[in-house]
Amino acid sequence: MRTGFVGLGAMGAPMARNLHRAGLLSGVWNRTAAKANELARELGCKAYEDPAKLAADCDIVVVCVSADQDLRDVVAFMRAGLRPGSIVIDCSTVGAATARALHAELASIDVAFLDCPVSGGVEGARQGTLAIMAGGDEPAFRRALPVLEKMGRKIAYLGPSGAGQATKATNQIMCAGIIQAVAEAMAFAKAEGLPLERVIDTLGQGAGSSWYFVNRAPFMARMDFPAGFRVRLHEKDLRICHEMAAARGVRLPVVESTLEEYAALIREGHGDEDISTIYRHKSALFAAGGPGPKS
Amino acid sequence: MRTGFVGLGAMGAPMARNLHRAGLLSGVWNRTAAKANELARELGCKAYEDPAKLAADCDIVVVCVSADQDLRDVVAFMRAGLRPGSIVIDCSTVGAATARALHAELASIDVAFLDCPVSGGVEGARQGTLAIMAGGDEPAFRRALPVLEKMGRKIAYLGPSGAGQATKATNQIMCAGIIQAVAEAMAFAKAEGLPLERVIDTLGQGAGSSWYFVNRAPFMARMDFPAGFRVRLHEKDLRICHEMAAARGVRLPVVESTLEEYAALIREGHGDEDISTIYRHKSALFAAGGPGPKS
Repeated sequence: MRTGFVGLGAMGAPMARNLHRAGLLSGVWNRTAAKANELARELGCKAYEDPAKLAADCDIVVVCVSADQDLRDVVAFMRAGLRPGSIVIDCSTVGAATARALHAELASIDVAFLDCPVSGGVEGARQGTLAIMAGGDEPAFRRALPVLEKMGRKIAYLGPSGAGQATKATNQIMCAGIIQAVAEAMAFAKAEGLPLERVIDTLGQGAGSSWYFVNRAPFMARMDFPAGFRVRLHEKDLRICHEMAAARGVRLPVVESTLEEYAALIREGHGDEDISTIYRHKSALFAAGGPGPKS
Repeated sequence: MRTGFVGLGAMGAPMARNLHRAGLLSGVWNRTAAKANELARELGCKAYEDPAKLAADCDIVVVCVSADQDLRDVVAFMRAGLRPGSIVIDCSTVGAATARALHAELASIDVAFLDCPVSGGVEGARQGTLAIMAGGDEPAFRRALPVLEKMGRKIAYLGPSGAGQATKATNQIMCAGIIQAVAEAMAFAKAEGLPLERVIDTLGQGAGSSWYFVNRAPFMARMDFPAGFRVRLHEKDLRICHEMAAARGVRLPVVESTLEEYAALIREGHGDEDISTIYRHKSALFAAGGPGPKS
């Protein structure tokens, strides 16, 4: 299966390398041509100047770009070259409505479009251990599986077009609420003078625990937030969640309060820190509070 | 070590039974005497009419009551009988300030007071698998350990008086934020038409996951909320968190929004359901929203 890769950023480049290792990668394209040329030299594959030409040479094109408009642009660039029966696998995180629109548009020229957002970060992209949440036509999903399996470890088919994006959005909503909860709880614990490492150890085994508590509360205890899941990226994903709910006439209070905190963190220059940096605000509240009782 | 037990409710009675099985229980007292008489007959131990007399006969008294005022009352009732060198182990969930006040008061008559709130629910109380978060003087904690170990499996010493309550409060704050996050995410997923069981299975392994998501999101998918952790009890605990933070001049947004939802749920007759019933509100928002796009 000749596979092309479009979008060679922090996630896309290592994903393309994994396809190359599996002998599947035939060519790459990137908006900034230098990146494509560099990777093509490294891997000994073809860097295309025209995405339509890449599409014309491939059975499957994997796309990994930043935002809805980038994805629409890339599909428009490729469209003239896309072959009937071929598949576009979109690994970007975009709105489900964008996925459904592109699915419908490409269906009219007999090209399948799968929305396959991933989670697991740059580390998961490198190691080929991403979780992949797929939506689209199931026969196309089954045909694409050999390619998906080279990029991820947990690959789930969630339903028709948009279901992959909606599942990713569901996950991002949970991350928002959990990081708020963990940060508020840790700020409280610190204000109470508790030994934070021992608190993490004790509560990490209980029903109030979560991946974020076990893995990120220690960052908060050290007031150090190395980039894991950047505020800027989660902020982008949460805006997608917000817009998807707004399209149904519904507000998402957890998402909206998190977006407000993120906007402030970005203004303050913390947009490239891990989302656990939200603890800065929560702990500042306590620092600014009254003297209160001491234990 | 002659051990007495005061407060034979849903948690206290099974905890007292575990002490009895270990040969430690010498007597019980309960505000409603019938409960004490019944348990004493069942176990063949002594039911006291006067808590001060129970205290006079014991090296350790374990207390498990509902609220701050109940605890203050019980300690006042026992006070005349409490022997120098004895220990009061309080397993109730109350404010850290109440614990610190009782600790100071009893220290003046050479009686140790340990705040030892538990988590793990009625099931954990029965099986002796509770998590116990202890605060108070460390030598007293070490002497009390043989008794604590008969009631719980994970026993952590968190620091001076109040540290146990503050740690429990930290946990309850996290539970509040997580249940909000899970409910909001699940309501979103349902509105998007996703297959909920598959979403739970897919995201349950990822970084957005939590004990509550894995164990309670299935309740939400079935719209069925059998009593696990009752809204009414979590509401009580969150009011404690709110008051502890307010004493420092700080608001806890996650806690406060959860308290508002709980107040409404209690009004609507859902106070004895599991806290995952908060999903009722979140999903109703989507049901009431505009028609929106369908996938």
